[in-house]
Amino acid sequence: MGDVETAVRSTLRAGEADAPRNSEVAYFGPDKPLKLDAGVELSPFQIAYKTYGTLNADRSNAVLICHALTGDQHAASPNPVTGKPGWWVTMVGPGKPIDTERYFVICSNVIGSCMGSTGPASTNPKTGEPWGLDFPVITIRDMVRAQAMLLDALNIETLFAVAGGSMGGMQVLQWAASFPKRVFCALPLACATRHSAQNIAFHEVGRQAVMADPEWHHGRYVVEGTEPRRGLAVARMAAHITYLSDAALHRKFGRKFQDRDKPTFSFDADFEVESYLRHQGSSFVERFDANSYLYLTRAMDYFDLAADHGGAVANAFRGLDTRFCVVSFTSDWLFPTSESRNIVHALNASGGRVSFAEIVTDKGHDAFLLDEPELFAITRGFLDGAAKMRGLNNGG
Amino acid sequence: MGDVETAVRSTLRAGEADAPRNSEVAYFGPDKPLKLDAGVELSPFQIAYKTYGTLNADRSNAVLICHALTGDQHAASPNPVTGKPGWWVTMVGPGKPIDTERYFVICSNVIGSCMGSTGPASTNPKTGEPWGLDFPVITIRDMVRAQAMLLDALNIETLFAVAGGSMGGMQVLQWAASFPKRVFCALPLACATRHSAQNIAFHEVGRQAVMADPEWHHGRYVVEGTEPRRGLAVARMAAHITYLSDAALHRKFGRKFQDRDKPTFSFDADFEVESYLRHQGSSFVERFDANSYLYLTRAMDYFDLAADHGGAVANAFRGLDTRFCVVSFTSDWLFPTSESRNIVHALNASGGRVSFAEIVTDKGHDAFLLDEPELFAITRGFLDGAAKMRGLNNGG
Repeated sequence: MGDVETAVRSTLRAGEADAPRNSEVAYFGPDKPLKLDAGVELSPFQIAYKTYGTLNADRSNAVLICHALTGDQHAASPNPVTGKPGWWVTMVGPGKPIDTERYFVICSNVIGSCMGSTGPASTNPKTGEPWGLDFPVITIRDMVRAQAMLLDALNIETLFAVAGGSMGGMQVLQWAASFPKRVFCALPLACATRHSAQNIAFHEVGRQAVMADPEWHHGRYVVEGTEPRRGLAVARMAAHITYLSDAALHRKFGRKFQDRDKPTFSFDADFEVESYLRHQGSSFVERFDANSYLYLTRAMDYFDLAADHGGAVANAFRGLDTRFCVVSFTSDWLFPTSESRNIVHALNASGGRVSFAEIVTDKGHDAFLLDEPELFAITRGFLDGAAKMRGLNNGG
Repeated sequence: MGDVETAVRSTLRAGEADAPRNSEVAYFGPDKPLKLDAGVELSPFQIAYKTYGTLNADRSNAVLICHALTGDQHAASPNPVTGKPGWWVTMVGPGKPIDTERYFVICSNVIGSCMGSTGPASTNPKTGEPWGLDFPVITIRDMVRAQAMLLDALNIETLFAVAGGSMGGMQVLQWAASFPKRVFCALPLACATRHSAQNIAFHEVGRQAVMADPEWHHGRYVVEGTEPRRGLAVARMAAHITYLSDAALHRKFGRKFQDRDKPTFSFDADFEVESYLRHQGSSFVERFDANSYLYLTRAMDYFDLAADHGGAVANAFRGLDTRFCVVSFTSDWLFPTSESRNIVHALNASGGRVSFAEIVTDKGHDAFLLDEPELFAITRGFLDGAAKMRGLNNGG
């Protein structure tokens, strides 16, 4: 990609933080602060969101989609920065497993992100400059609190369903724990009740890569007119490996050379997997803010449902009426099936209602975003059954 | 560690490249060039090495130890830069599994490294400056060719054994393939016949982290008076995660906070695993050269015994008399047991002699460097049996 295109995209992306295109924005003024786990209040703040489908008369068919680390509100419509289709068009849309002809789908950008909900890239009204590291550190619980305020603003008391994978799945679990009466059914995919030491370690590598970049300027890169592109690209490259599986990398690339038969005996991208990774790194920088990356990885690291509930996850779910469908993927080594089993065991221990599926795939953690017919069938079946119980007819 | 100590160590380490302390050095002049796979000759060059024990009268008790990516010749004696014990004192020494009272142990720094064998940190005689990126890209086969020249210089025709783990294990396999008549028995540990796509990907992240550091200066950091410390530290952090297992990280650190009970809601090293990783990164920079890191990771990426032998690893081993003992570790996800099984299958297919052990441990890839009693017992038993066949008596 040329330097001009890069500059244009960076500018487009930076603009999203305050004025997101193709999105609705809910503004929460000084009378409605967001109370954060860090012990401070964020005020004023805004939430950027998208909706798909139609809310029914008794406001009972709302489905909240929670996005993953670098996702956004554009689940089922084109991303205004990249122009690419929404990140979950496989799952969300007319006739899709999360059927927008039946359900009113809401997807909001999480607090701390950079696509229009308040985060470190947003303008701090006190200074007129981006928040940067003055933005308070947030948690998954804070994200969910903000989403609940959005639902209040939309006058939606109860969600028919809340669904998401990875960091989105953490939010799903937190929704059930924080607002048990507001969630009829829940679909946490490829996630865990707490971030493992290995996952914290990978996140820390990414943060160190960003912070090692002299263009980061302690988070003040916008003011300094720079951007920690290389550090953020390295962070993304490391993370991207964890989203795939060894088998998927082997199937896609193996040891194939890039546009040649033999090694170059140099540090060029000799292997296809190298140029693929470099592309993943550089294209990510076009669409994501480096400070948001720090904040959101931190939020995932802090997530620990057991610690928040007297040491046992089951306490988080006690007395819950929410129906759960927990899904894991065999080749996901970032959130392996054992983590999903822990969710199931906790729900069993608390007397919850849960079904569980482990889907056989070599696609790794990212399987929840990809074409996985078994995931689609399970989601459709689970939502159909829950909709019947909820008394939602086919028309919504 | 203070800045002064850091500077002292960096200077000490830089000195090792040309004039390694506590090491022997074999010098190969213009009449003895090293013919490299890249199609060029390296000349002159030197190999730094250590020996332990005594060579017997018929020169039949030599054991070559091959070190891993960031190892060196100081297998069983203190490292002159760090002052720490040798990296394989658990395995090598008087009465140890590789018993220096019986065997004459040789351990040489590989070509391309930075501890006294010629590599990118060494002075290029043509310029009087460090080679940097003018150093030719090398392969595992080149390392082994250089080791064979060292044995010639020591007037040792045949090795009783060659042993090593990880990149060292690759050299062990290459020894059997390149010099089948010179190796009586071979101990490749925690290795593979080729580097996987995922492993290449992790190496590429490390290289990109180094090269993204502006202090790297296209490899000319010594001349520029800088050092890509932060980039190399990030590379090491990412790699270090792959050397451990999820279970080991969980056992050692879990989600324990560093010197406190609660999160700081900041980007400080809140979790113990974070400060551990940061320490791994910063201490590595004290003892290793960034360009060497690029060259040696590249050599591992290029390693592919099958590609070198008409597409089948078995071809590399055909007609071999060498006895093999292949060892893997259950929790090693960098070189999983399936890779060791491939070695065994190839040896079986070529009619070779091989025993195989998979050791149950949660210590991950690094298990071959750690206190693993089963590894010690297997190594001792294998070498004892081979020594009997070789007619080595207890005195060597």
